[in-house]
Formats: sequence, C-alpha cells, structure tokens
Amino acid sequence: MERVYNFNPGPATLPLEVLEEARDRFMEFGGMSILEISHRSSAFSDIMDEAARNLVVELMGLPKNYRVLFLQGGASIHFAMVPMNLLATSADYAITGHWSKRALGEAGHVGKTNVVYTAEERGFKATPKAGELNVNANADYLHITTNNTIFGTEYRDIPDAGDVPIVADMSSDILSQRIDASRMGLIYAGAQKNLGPSGVSLVIIREDLLERTPRDIPPILTYKAHAKKNSLLNTPPVFAIFCLGLVLKWLKKSGGIEAIEKTNREKAALIYEVLDASGFYTPHADHDSRSIMNITFTLPSAELTEKFVADAEQQRLVGLKGHRSVGGIRASVYNAFPVEGVRKLAAFMKEFERNS
Amino acid sequence: MERVYNFNPGPATLPLEVLEEARDRFMEFGGMSILEISHRSSAFSDIMDEAARNLVVELMGLPKNYRVLFLQGGASIHFAMVPMNLLATSADYAITGHWSKRALGEAGHVGKTNVVYTAEERGFKATPKAGELNVNANADYLHITTNNTIFGTEYRDIPDAGDVPIVADMSSDILSQRIDASRMGLIYAGAQKNLGPSGVSLVIIREDLLERTPRDIPPILTYKAHAKKNSLLNTPPVFAIFCLGLVLKWLKKSGGIEAIEKTNREKAALIYEVLDASGFYTPHADHDSRSIMNITFTLPSAELTEKFVADAEQQRLVGLKGHRSVGGIRASVYNAFPVEGVRKLAAFMKEFERNS
Repeated sequence: MERVYNFNPGPATLPLEVLEEARDRFMEFGGMSILEISHRSSAFSDIMDEAARNLVVELMGLPKNYRVLFLQGGASIHFAMVPMNLLATSADYAITGHWSKRALGEAGHVGKTNVVYTAEERGFKATPKAGELNVNANADYLHITTNNTIFGTEYRDIPDAGDVPIVADMSSDILSQRIDASRMGLIYAGAQKNLGPSGVSLVIIREDLLERTPRDIPPILTYKAHAKKNSLLNTPPVFAIFCLGLVLKWLKKSGGIEAIEKTNREKAALIYEVLDASGFYTPHADHDSRSIMNITFTLPSAELTEKFVADAEQQRLVGLKGHRSVGGIRASVYNAFPVEGVRKLAAFMKEFERNS
Repeated sequence: MERVYNFNPGPATLPLEVLEEARDRFMEFGGMSILEISHRSSAFSDIMDEAARNLVVELMGLPKNYRVLFLQGGASIHFAMVPMNLLATSADYAITGHWSKRALGEAGHVGKTNVVYTAEERGFKATPKAGELNVNANADYLHITTNNTIFGTEYRDIPDAGDVPIVADMSSDILSQRIDASRMGLIYAGAQKNLGPSGVSLVIIREDLLERTPRDIPPILTYKAHAKKNSLLNTPPVFAIFCLGLVLKWLKKSGGIEAIEKTNREKAALIYEVLDASGFYTPHADHDSRSIMNITFTLPSAELTEKFVADAEQQRLVGLKGHRSVGGIRASVYNAFPVEGVRKLAAFMKEFERNS
C-alpha cells in the first residue's frame, strides 16, 4: 500500500528506511526475534550502547558530566518524577501550553510551584522572550517546554536562569536543531515525535542532579537508581530502544543536527510563506514564537476547516486536524517528515485558498 | 535463520505465528506502519478494545467490577504505584523471592509494611501453604508474587486473606492456568513473559480499589486517572499493545486457559520427571511449590553446569543458565514455549546425565 504523508503530532511518521530495517531484521537475532532477546544479551547491550552512549552523546554534543537514560512511561511520567527527584523547596514553571500545564499540575502534588510565566491569557500564542521569565534565584529548578505541540510555538532561545537548573520537556523538538546542552540540567522527551515509536522516553541529566534525589521515594521513581543500573533497573522496552537507535543512525547518516535543522527550517518556511502571503489562513502562533515542528493555523469557518481536512486526505495528506483547544489545522513536520510532503501540502493550501 | 528454543526468563519466546503476523502487518495500517499510527485512531481503538475489553476479560473470566489497564513501566513501576495508591495504614507482604523483596523494598519508602511470610532462610524453595500466611485483618492489602521466576516456585492456591484485598504480581504466570479472579483485588504483570514483548504492563483492578487512591499523589501515578482515561492518559506503547493483542488472540485460538494449562502442566511434567528419576540433577523448589513456568535445578558442580549450558546451546537450546542467586539451570517454559523444545531438553538432560 502506498504511504501517506502523515502529519500526526505523535506517534508520528518515521523514516521509511528505519521502518524497513526494523521489519527486515525483525526475526534475525540469533534465531530469535528482536521481541524475544534478553535485555541482558550482548545483542541488546550493543543496541543500548550504540543508541545511548554513542549516538545521543555525539548528535547532541553532550558534555561528559551528563548521563543518558532510556526509560518507560513517555514524557508524562517525568512530570511526576522531576519534582519527586528535584523539588525540595519550590520550583519555577513557565506555562506555554497544555503540556507545561500538565507538568505543573503533577508537580503541584509533590511540592510548592511558582508560575513565572504564562501565555494562557493570550491563547498560548507566545513563548517567553529575554527578560520575560523572572526566575526565582532560590528555585530548585525552572521547568520549560521548549516546543508546544498543540499551539505550534517554540522557544527562540533557552532562557537565562542563572544558577537555577533548567529542566526541559523537549518531546516535540529534541534533536531538531542545535541547542547548547551544557546550559540544561535535565532534558526529557517521549520518543514518539522525533525519536522513534511510543513506549520509551529519553532522559539526559547532569550528574550532580542525581545526588539531589531524596532518600524517601521508591527507587524505581528515582533517576539515580536508573542511572546506577544504566537503564537496566527494570526490563527496558527492547524493541522501542532498537527503533530509537535506528532513527539516530538515520539522523547521523543524514548529516546530523546541522543538516536536519537546515531541512527543518526550510520545510517550515514552505508553509509559513503560504500563511504569510494569504488573507485566508490565519497563523495561530506569534511570528517570533513560531515552531518549526508543529505549524498551526485557522481557516475562516469550521465548515472550511472540515473540507480542508477531507480534501487533503483525498491527496494522501493525513493527520492535519488541529487540536480541539486551537481548532483549525496543525501540520506536524518532525525530522522524519519528508520535504516532498511539505511541498505537496503547500501546493494544496494555495489551491484550496484559490478555490474557496 | 533457524529458530532456537529460547528458555530465557523474559523477554521470552513468543508464538511464531504472532511474530510473523506482526512482521507481515508492520507497514500495513492505512499507508502507515503500526509504529506511526495515532493512539487516537480507530485502528488503535480496535486494537486496545480487542486486547483489553474482549480478550483479557474473556480469557480470565473477569467479573464486571474489574477494570483492565495497559500501562508502561513493566511490573516494577507497580511495586511503587501499589503502595502509593493503596497503602493508607499498613500492608502485608509475603516474601517468596527476589521480586517480592523488590516490591517490599519499594513499598517501604511509601508506608508501613509487615512481612507475614518469608521463605528466604529456606533458599526460597517454598511458597506458603494454607495456614502459613497470617494476614493482619486491618492490612490495606496482602501482596503476593504468584510465581517466582528466579527460584522456580509457584503458589498452589491463592491464599485466604479474608476481607483484605489480595494484590498479586503475576508477571510470570498470568494466563498460564485458571485462577479465580474474583478473589483478587489487583493483578499486575509485565508483558515480557506470557503476554508479549517488554514495554507494557497489564493491570486488572477491582473498581472499588480505584476509590482508595489518595488525592495527594501525582495523577500519572494513580490507577484511578489511568482507568478514567481508559489507558489513554498518556500516549500508550502502541506496538507492544498490538503484539499483546496478537498473543491473546493466539491463546484464544489455541483453546484458551484450560487448554494452555493442560499443555503447561504436561510440559513441566516432562522435565520434572527427568529430575525425579535422576541422581544427578537436584531440583531447587520443594515438590509442593514447583512452578510450571520456571523449572530450576542444580548439577553436581559449576564445571558440569557450564558444560551443560554450552552443550545445550550446541543443540539450539538457549537461555538455560540459572540466575546467580540459585546457580544451576533454569528452564523457563511459558505459554508460548513449544512442547517439542521441552521434549528436546528432556532428552538432552537424560543424555547429558548418562555421559557425565
């Protein structure tokens, strides 16, 4: 069956060659399937090491004092684990969308939180600019969501938090562009947007933060215990990590972060140019807060939106319906989304505008 | 490549037809791969409903007041979530092996625990018999591990706990034999032994226990929030649940619980008969505590054990090395392990004994 262009926000499209390799090697692990190999086997050690130590460190340019973990639970478990591990007195949260609110909500059950920025009253059209985030100097950490999947906004720069460690949910823009990891305390990301299939999360943590973990929480909920056992404290999601490794290998082969960032900016520009030239489509995000991963816009009416989605599906452009809290259209164009599909969407948008 | 007989304790062997179906349908979900479909799609709803509501309920004969959840994190996350959700005053733990100790250890960070049985001083050769478990009438729950993967022991009967809810880690014997689910408060199981690949856990919870969840824990760590959202509170591990559904379909087609229990007892008997007729092999578990899933025994020396493992591998019988805490040999023969492989091991054992 012919592949569609899958604009879903996550689980999302994956590189075709990754899928084909996963399928072709599915039964080929020493007389077993990849689903059946032991997580203590050398085959899996190789997969974890290649995916973890080598490729994440290399692609992100991680300093030596960072640890890379692969854990189950998606990003959501870290909404709880971050405060359970790091919140002693109080933590600062910048609220830029649905998911940062969720993170704040979970943390509120653990300890004291301060909202140091919110874009809610402006319909989450913006991310904080320099000087807009007033971090408390004695906060245990500042939590940010670097890209807001639902609203299509993204931080232009990592904010200045002084000595306060920055904890970033990067689920929807991890590895999409160069960031200075040495400015971060902890990065977490669910895999199902830029890294692989759902069922695994990536955690990058500065080693000194492992020591902040209080003694009286269950070890399985501590980063320290997982780091000590090198992500083998419990049985890891073997197949998801295998696929994640294949995605990282593909990313490296495709030229790494610099190349993918260039492509991502070009892809996003193709759509934003249509939006900016149009009197028909209204972009949701402020110009200086636009995401290069999720592009959101509205149409003049609900009927036209519905027709847009239906007509697009006829052209094999699927998953474009916006989240109910924004309405309209959302085009998620993560790393693996092919540029041909973006061109096809841009052409479709112009044609749809002409015919409406 | 020819398939081996995989005696690994988990991740473990899966039915060949399940693996082949997963591979063959890998790219075939409406122009996407199963790894790429949205967890909000009707395709995934069908998978979850079929796997959850229909097959688990049907195969286990669950009463109407039980909820079925599919969560990330394996069994280990439930070592923490169970006390976080259910432990108000104190909880009773029966210690029958490594994993029940781990469960106790995690719970100790949450609240007061009582050890009401332990087989540790007897090398974990036994499970409690009627009258050996003195449950506290006011305990919030009794935690048991129905099958002990490492030591090869298994409960003969679900203990009598009066009105105290029984919480059972059934990771290594779920769906291997008929149990009276109506006697249980909560069952949890990591998938990677009898249910599918690693990366998902099955939780079966009596509805009234959902209401015990205290308000002040992060919602993502409550069974109540997951139940309310029908396991879609966060992005589920789509592929692992898909495979789990295929395994349940295979189990139903193979005759369901009654048929698999008969086969499992026959498979285990083939090995235990060799052990009982031998003056060479020493079974680890007490006769009345023997597991039908994990069969453990020792040889006269470490050298012979090593030779046994190496010679067995030559015959494509792999994963037989016992856990370091028991030594010797462990043959894990879960539902999907083929009877031909058990016959081959029995023959190999007799031959190895003759030649030693």
